[in-house]
Amino acid sequence: MVDTAPRTASKQQKAAPERPAETAPPKSARTAASAPQPAPPAQPSIDVATLGRQLLGTWADLRLAARERAAHPDLQRIEGQSMDEHRERVLGQLKILVDQRAVHRAFPTSLGGFDDHGGNIAQFEELVIADPSLQIKAGVQWGLFGAAVLHLGTEFHHETFLPDIMSLKVPGAFAMTETGHGSDVAAIGTTATYDEAKQQFVINTPFRGAWKDYLGNAAVHGTAAVVFAQLITKGVNHGVHAFYVPIRNTKGGFLKGIGGEDDGLKGGLNGIDNGRLHFTNVRVPRVNLLNRYGSVAEDGTYSSPISSPGRRFFTMLGTLVQGRVSLDGAATTAAAMALTIAITYGNQRRQFNAASDTDEEVLLDYQRHQRRLLPKLATTYAQIFAHDEFLVKFDAVFSGAADTDDDRQDLETIAAALKPLSTWHALETLQEAREATGGSGFLAENRMVGLRQDLDVYVTFEGDNNVLLQLVAKRLLTDFSKQFAKADAGVMARYVVAQTADRAYHGTGLRRLAQTIADFGSTARSVSELRDEQTQRELLTDRVEAMISEIAGRLRDARKLPKADAAAAFNRNQNELIEAARAHGELLQWEAFTRALAKTSDPGTKQVLTWVRDLFGLGLVEKHLAWYLMNGRLSPQRAQAVTAYIDRLLERLRPHAQDLVDAFGYGPEHLRAKIASGAEQERQDEARAYYAAQRAAGTLPVPEKSKKK
Amino acid sequence: MVDTAPRTASKQQKAAPERPAETAPPKSARTAASAPQPAPPAQPSIDVATLGRQLLGTWADLRLAARERAAHPDLQRIEGQSMDEHRERVLGQLKILVDQRAVHRAFPTSLGGFDDHGGNIAQFEELVIADPSLQIKAGVQWGLFGAAVLHLGTEFHHETFLPDIMSLKVPGAFAMTETGHGSDVAAIGTTATYDEAKQQFVINTPFRGAWKDYLGNAAVHGTAAVVFAQLITKGVNHGVHAFYVPIRNTKGGFLKGIGGEDDGLKGGLNGIDNGRLHFTNVRVPRVNLLNRYGSVAEDGTYSSPISSPGRRFFTMLGTLVQGRVSLDGAATTAAAMALTIAITYGNQRRQFNAASDTDEEVLLDYQRHQRRLLPKLATTYAQIFAHDEFLVKFDAVFSGAADTDDDRQDLETIAAALKPLSTWHALETLQEAREATGGSGFLAENRMVGLRQDLDVYVTFEGDNNVLLQLVAKRLLTDFSKQFAKADAGVMARYVVAQTADRAYHGTGLRRLAQTIADFGSTARSVSELRDEQTQRELLTDRVEAMISEIAGRLRDARKLPKADAAAAFNRNQNELIEAARAHGELLQWEAFTRALAKTSDPGTKQVLTWVRDLFGLGLVEKHLAWYLMNGRLSPQRAQAVTAYIDRLLERLRPHAQDLVDAFGYGPEHLRAKIASGAEQERQDEARAYYAAQRAAGTLPVPEKSKKK
Repeated sequence: MVDTAPRTASKQQKAAPERPAETAPPKSARTAASAPQPAPPAQPSIDVATLGRQLLGTWADLRLAARERAAHPDLQRIEGQSMDEHRERVLGQLKILVDQRAVHRAFPTSLGGFDDHGGNIAQFEELVIADPSLQIKAGVQWGLFGAAVLHLGTEFHHETFLPDIMSLKVPGAFAMTETGHGSDVAAIGTTATYDEAKQQFVINTPFRGAWKDYLGNAAVHGTAAVVFAQLITKGVNHGVHAFYVPIRNTKGGFLKGIGGEDDGLKGGLNGIDNGRLHFTNVRVPRVNLLNRYGSVAEDGTYSSPISSPGRRFFTMLGTLVQGRVSLDGAATTAAAMALTIAITYGNQRRQFNAASDTDEEVLLDYQRHQRRLLPKLATTYAQIFAHDEFLVKFDAVFSGAADTDDDRQDLETIAAALKPLSTWHALETLQEAREATGGSGFLAENRMVGLRQDLDVYVTFEGDNNVLLQLVAKRLLTDFSKQFAKADAGVMARYVVAQTADRAYHGTGLRRLAQTIADFGSTARSVSELRDEQTQRELLTDRVEAMISEIAGRLRDARKLPKADAAAAFNRNQNELIEAARAHGELLQWEAFTRALAKTSDPGTKQVLTWVRDLFGLGLVEKHLAWYLMNGRLSPQRAQAVTAYIDRLLERLRPHAQDLVDAFGYGPEHLRAKIASGAEQERQDEARAYYAAQRAAGTLPVPEKSKKK
Repeated sequence: MVDTAPRTASKQQKAAPERPAETAPPKSARTAASAPQPAPPAQPSIDVATLGRQLLGTWADLRLAARERAAHPDLQRIEGQSMDEHRERVLGQLKILVDQRAVHRAFPTSLGGFDDHGGNIAQFEELVIADPSLQIKAGVQWGLFGAAVLHLGTEFHHETFLPDIMSLKVPGAFAMTETGHGSDVAAIGTTATYDEAKQQFVINTPFRGAWKDYLGNAAVHGTAAVVFAQLITKGVNHGVHAFYVPIRNTKGGFLKGIGGEDDGLKGGLNGIDNGRLHFTNVRVPRVNLLNRYGSVAEDGTYSSPISSPGRRFFTMLGTLVQGRVSLDGAATTAAAMALTIAITYGNQRRQFNAASDTDEEVLLDYQRHQRRLLPKLATTYAQIFAHDEFLVKFDAVFSGAADTDDDRQDLETIAAALKPLSTWHALETLQEAREATGGSGFLAENRMVGLRQDLDVYVTFEGDNNVLLQLVAKRLLTDFSKQFAKADAGVMARYVVAQTADRAYHGTGLRRLAQTIADFGSTARSVSELRDEQTQRELLTDRVEAMISEIAGRLRDARKLPKADAAAAFNRNQNELIEAARAHGELLQWEAFTRALAKTSDPGTKQVLTWVRDLFGLGLVEKHLAWYLMNGRLSPQRAQAVTAYIDRLLERLRPHAQDLVDAFGYGPEHLRAKIASGAEQERQDEARAYYAAQRAAGTLPVPEKSKKK
């Protein structure tokens, strides 16, 4: 697969020019990067095929097979289709996926699946290459609707409902979100009241805000739904549970008591028929309660294997974490595709001739262009490595290999930390890539605008990004206060929070870095130490720990306050809490990148990849530089060296940019962007040949300016 | 107009809660904001109508008339139309504008216009409310195609071509950009070679990269074009000139020698038929050269009122600055609309009940939500005020009231500084507003996704934003080196660049602030000084000056180097140069806001607006905080106070958020967003009434959790 990637640009690559000695700037921060360095190794080169394999990760073969599938035009988006055409096309594509047995890996072997949870997600994510609508509609059918029956239901439900779900005989909706409640699922208004006399649940929508909303498959195609509702029996509300509810007859009409609306045109993902549903005392049999975590006996008695209603609720939601897992992967894929397009084009396109009278500059030789694209490339690498570890963790939990409560909570925290970062990164990268390709990037034929429109909603669905980061922050605070519940403030300040990236992945527990770090800013280490892995780790770890520790200190007495005052105290720290959670997610990514680096054996590849990791790590430090300065972690001089060293890294990485995107392994059949097809190179060659021929023949008109001389 | 704005949310507004003394955090940066403050004035209130009038600016009546026009459904976008339908609809809308005499203000009175350049732009910008495609297609026809004939042509062209352009009898393309050259217009490949024998120009496209591309009206509707080409006569290339060239016959077929392609579907603005054109030795009469700045006599002799080819080129391009002016205004309008939608919804929508057992929180009461929206609101205010000054300057130049070379260069520099900032701000604001409204924001019916898709290209057309900022930076460097060409480095460091915001608008020349500022960080002034206007001015001004001065120092000897080395030296500073230009643009906006504040008379309005200005100014300082710290302009303690004071400002402004967006003056007929219509408030009221009634009647099911107690 790697071999099919476009390589035409490689010929244009050139080594970054050495800084000429005579233009050395005066002594300032900028010169730090040109201070004496150890002699660099001979110009390293990347083994693209091997790196490509590493990037494919744990489920490489399944990913390759999925990419081959995604390369088929039948599964790809046709730009410019109307909403109705697009919806029908995607429904047809789901049937193709069923025929290819491409969507059943997560289901039980007893029903024709593979019980392969990690592999299923790996394969599923790659669908974004073909059409994000296809990815998400498949996700609705098998990853949400089907997975809810699988994970929240029991044997009866598996045997009764899953076969038709797997075969798409029953397309279904995942009816959780309501118009009035998105992220706050616990507060949904829909009720399911048990009627002992008839042994039925009565599903009801009490007011307009409790209409189910934004549900894929609800507007047109769905004939059933998993409906989340407050389970009420014997006058007690046992909280949100899921019910299997048929919604349409075979002719597409709503069943009695059910109504709905089409959500209509959206900003993207218009291949999915999102819609609204409401229920007026709709009755379903008692057994339609998906009762793995809560059952109602014939006489209306409620029972659950989990006694705490709160823990029960989060356990039920936790089984649906795969949505967040897959969005992290799909968003990263989209970012990688955008960078492949923009960097390939930037290696061919020329504009302005600052350095020569005849030849224009290749875009990627401009410092600003490097600044716009290469740090995003570094982040994308970090995300790919972090995602693979995340998926391995997910697989361990869902296969049962390691699924203690702690494992599940760690998994959910990782999901809540990574999904926001990668989905926002995808939007920023798609936008920067589109801008970096100018007017061409705005044409639908070059893919980036369409991908961005589709991925837009990834940042607010399956958990709004800000809400998810707040969950992470609360977890960090909880871990912190567990450790130091009885310690005094002085002790707290010297210790560190337990929830470091390392622990999240590997459970290695506490480390004591804070004191080391506190002294770091005042030492006179040279700029080259910024390249040191341990330095980067300490800087990034310390920031998470210090932020959480400081906020925890401020909130220490808040729990003793009346509820409203405690909430107000929390609210005054909300923005910083979310920033701390983001820092935690960034650290997770950096740690994963660093572990991947340790597994890279080819020396040239390892050298270049180390620069990429450094660019990622120091890019994070630069982004948060004010924090490091204000908190005494970096001196002003050292802080200036960060930017200067990033500039140096950009120069070093520039000749490897094409290899780094080629290693993602997307061929023209995946990118389908005319500007990344080599057409630009042909145009440039033709134009340059035209002028060269005219110059050679002496027929090029003389510029007025030169004539005056 | 202000009276029609949605006000339903005002009832929900409440004063920011006072920080309870018992939750006062430990002594840290965060406490700076809770340090003793002078007693705040009695809760001020905004006079919305008067503020609304101030925001409408110099051409208030024309804007109001244009908004009334934009409120007519006939001129509005229909979401979900196919590209072809949308294109035809917008063409029809242009005819409505002609019938309403709404598009001729900039044209000569002798031809039925008004010679009103500022008013024309003010009116034109408001079209974005109806449909950005309508705005831009009108801009292509009258602001580019027509304006090129007007400004680059002479009396013959005005009399011959303008009437049919004004009436839309001849829809036309502005054929400047080529597939191979966008921002670098001087390097286009199309040639116009004079044939003395036939007294004709021969327009020719020498290679694929020289096809004209991304031209509105070129794919379908255009029957003529202003074509930019290298003018060649007697073997000399006199550089880029414009030619009037018929391209299609009355049946829509291309004329002989002309071909083209449809650019097809785009990321947005699909109501405009962008396309490509190429010319194979197409002949036009000699008089079709638009010859205000360069003429060719019958015998082929070239003459021009401007002897320098470089200055001539920039003068010609400079006449087309109005595109950038209008994008600055239209982008600001779109941002204001998005904030009106998101803040209105954020004042009605409730989610999570952290502070109460029964009532959920209004979104805008969350600190994070305030952080996401209110700083963008402050920037939008700054942009509105800066844009009005910009438009006044534009009008002075184009009316001839003040159009020296310096005036024109200043105008172009302002345009190149403001257009990038406001167009990027529009995209960021539309995105944040869409995310802040969750899944609802992703629905086309709520406008934000569509506006964002359309405005996406504003950041790269009419001058790519990065290229424009580089132009600004070069101007700042030039001004700097003119002042200090012969001064030594020490003198340079003590003085400041001439190109401050104040001078750009008012020509007040040099100020000497640097030394004052350099001492500032070490003083022990209290946090309240951050509110001081002069402090903000000094911080913002100093940053521009210091950055330019430092880069100029580094590049000082570069001009003596060989061309390639000089270019490399420049390139190593490119990113920082662009950041300096951005800082300059931000300063322009801050200065304009501050001048507008001085004109605000109502005390309550002035108080609130001062907080908004402070939020904008200190927001800029916070954004660039690392720079202030690294360069010794702010001490770490003072820097921490910046964020703390911003948090305080957000609390103060929160109760005024609805008034601040209502003052923009957009009614439901402009916003056309269901979530800003009051529907959310109705849903919230209904839901709360439902639960209140159940509680009152004792029929609300008991939560399992409370039952266990």
